[in-house]
Amino acid sequence: MKAIAVTPKEEKSARMVEVPVPKVGDDEVLVKVRLVGLDGTDREIDEGLYGDPPEGENFLIIGHESLGEVVKVGGEVQTLRPGDRVVATVRRPDDCLNCRAEEYDMCLAGNYTERGIKGRHGYLSEYYVEEEKFLMKVPKVLGDLAVLLEPISVAEKAVRMAFSVQERMRWEPKTAMVTGTGTLGLLTAAILRLGGLAVASVDRSDDDRKEEIFSVLGVTHFNAKMVNLHDIPKELGCQIDLIVEETGSSTVALHSMMVVGTNGVVVLTSITGGDKKMEICSDCFNQGLVLGNKAVVGSVNAHRRDFKEGIGHLLTIENRWPGLLRKLITARYPPEKIREALDSMKGNIKVVIEFEPQKVSR
Amino acid sequence: MKAIAVTPKEEKSARMVEVPVPKVGDDEVLVKVRLVGLDGTDREIDEGLYGDPPEGENFLIIGHESLGEVVKVGGEVQTLRPGDRVVATVRRPDDCLNCRAEEYDMCLAGNYTERGIKGRHGYLSEYYVEEEKFLMKVPKVLGDLAVLLEPISVAEKAVRMAFSVQERMRWEPKTAMVTGTGTLGLLTAAILRLGGLAVASVDRSDDDRKEEIFSVLGVTHFNAKMVNLHDIPKELGCQIDLIVEETGSSTVALHSMMVVGTNGVVVLTSITGGDKKMEICSDCFNQGLVLGNKAVVGSVNAHRRDFKEGIGHLLTIENRWPGLLRKLITARYPPEKIREALDSMKGNIKVVIEFEPQKVSR
Repeated sequence: MKAIAVTPKEEKSARMVEVPVPKVGDDEVLVKVRLVGLDGTDREIDEGLYGDPPEGENFLIIGHESLGEVVKVGGEVQTLRPGDRVVATVRRPDDCLNCRAEEYDMCLAGNYTERGIKGRHGYLSEYYVEEEKFLMKVPKVLGDLAVLLEPISVAEKAVRMAFSVQERMRWEPKTAMVTGTGTLGLLTAAILRLGGLAVASVDRSDDDRKEEIFSVLGVTHFNAKMVNLHDIPKELGCQIDLIVEETGSSTVALHSMMVVGTNGVVVLTSITGGDKKMEICSDCFNQGLVLGNKAVVGSVNAHRRDFKEGIGHLLTIENRWPGLLRKLITARYPPEKIREALDSMKGNIKVVIEFEPQKVSR
Repeated sequence: MKAIAVTPKEEKSARMVEVPVPKVGDDEVLVKVRLVGLDGTDREIDEGLYGDPPEGENFLIIGHESLGEVVKVGGEVQTLRPGDRVVATVRRPDDCLNCRAEEYDMCLAGNYTERGIKGRHGYLSEYYVEEEKFLMKVPKVLGDLAVLLEPISVAEKAVRMAFSVQERMRWEPKTAMVTGTGTLGLLTAAILRLGGLAVASVDRSDDDRKEEIFSVLGVTHFNAKMVNLHDIPKELGCQIDLIVEETGSSTVALHSMMVVGTNGVVVLTSITGGDKKMEICSDCFNQGLVLGNKAVVGSVNAHRRDFKEGIGHLLTIENRWPGLLRKLITARYPPEKIREALDSMKGNIKVVIEFEPQKVSR
């Protein structure tokens, strides 16, 4: 079968490879892939910044934002049957305290693997095999939009972390901000809007297609080329209670901690590989956090409960703002055009790779 | 009566002044002061770094760590009577959401006042008057040790914040570290030891008196002049799950966030006035927080519940490690020697000002 693989740590090595269709074990499911979304992680793996092949192999099939259809199930599989639409989770446990409790996203030992990223092949292939317990059945009514489930699960965890951390006090947040307006930022903004918050966003892009999304969501957008992050509370006329940092820029991350208001919380969800240095007024930074009773929390990956919450929110978003989610998928490529697809990411919101659309269309 | 006042923003202005004994209203209590602890805030106010006098006045009576005895109560006072030992809380509310809910330590609007610090006279005087609701009755058995209640309340809030934030996940902390071993650091270490954690401490002091305290508490101490903060987990042979930052050094604060382990939490409790800048590897910083699911929380002041918890912990500490708390009070001065007392702080753990000890001795 066709698959897209990289040679880890080698720049621009993503290419089509031919590999056997994997065999299905008793507790496993064979999934025919329909769509795979690309994100910054895929791009950075293709740039050779990180990514690890499965043990003993020299290539890594990438792709971790999947949507597929069950075509075959092993004898012990109980909850899935052929024809079901499924999205696979990404991280696989080691044997640490948290992983044993099925909290893989909070793995303590760091020996987890991740499909398409670290030590396991991903989903950019015609078929994949996975254990039943790592698959989420998604409603058919979502159609292709279910490919947004993995990204929204990351947003769900971020928002869940924020609200959980804030249980430390009486907290009635009114205003939130997302830094970065890629798929993750826009989905986070939608979740926060559904939660009744006023939402601002900030980025450095000049993407006209986003203007319409901001308008539909009722998000107040700022272009960071025109407005300093520190001036946004003044522009809004109120303090910002919650910031979800989704640019990966460490400069933005650090300034967000200074910009968030008293008793506020910043969730950091994104990184870029690198070792950029910056000078900050560390005293101001520390004073602001302490005197403002502020909190900062890093959030990576997502729990199965975040995928479940994500299914609910995708349905609610589609109901509240019909057609909005479709606008996030701005480019589709066949697997043969993986190079073109990767190169097109900077000018798009979500780029997806599409496998034989006629077979499992909505 | 005698009182110790500063001219705010004027360096080294602390001196004895003569002021009238304040009048007691119907819901108020007149307290004869027994002991007042000095801390970094008092020293920084004396250095002219901050501090605001009450409206319309040009001096500020300092001191916010008090222990006194009720000598007179207004007609509406219900729970206190002459002879009761009391410690006064510090912050007084404005009319924000949180203050109205009696969560003054989480004041949103920032218009709170603080006795001895911001807009209200403190307790460094022979008598003070306070509303019943801002006083904590303390058990007589604690004797002079109750002067440690205000500092331990700050430690209680810090530890409460840490555990509350960590409710976001399954968390079984094993190792904690306090940075800074002043009164606050030592009391925090004691609380964490009572909670069953292995505790490390780090500072830059060479105080022999502390060695004995570390030994009694079973704290593993590191001298920051000899060991890099980043090497301490290696020295301990395990990751650090919780760091309480109590030096106020913003450099230590930022590095603590990098040193804390996966799923760990850092509580920042301390500041120093200033605008020191430092260069950090912001990418490493952001990557660590995100990939490690780490949390950072600023904590200032304390809630009434933290004073209550503090009373319980002072009693437990005295029971578990008899005589330990007394070792924290390393110098006593009469109010006339305030200059000497302030100047002696760097070589001491806790310096207290003592008013007429014979009258309310243990």
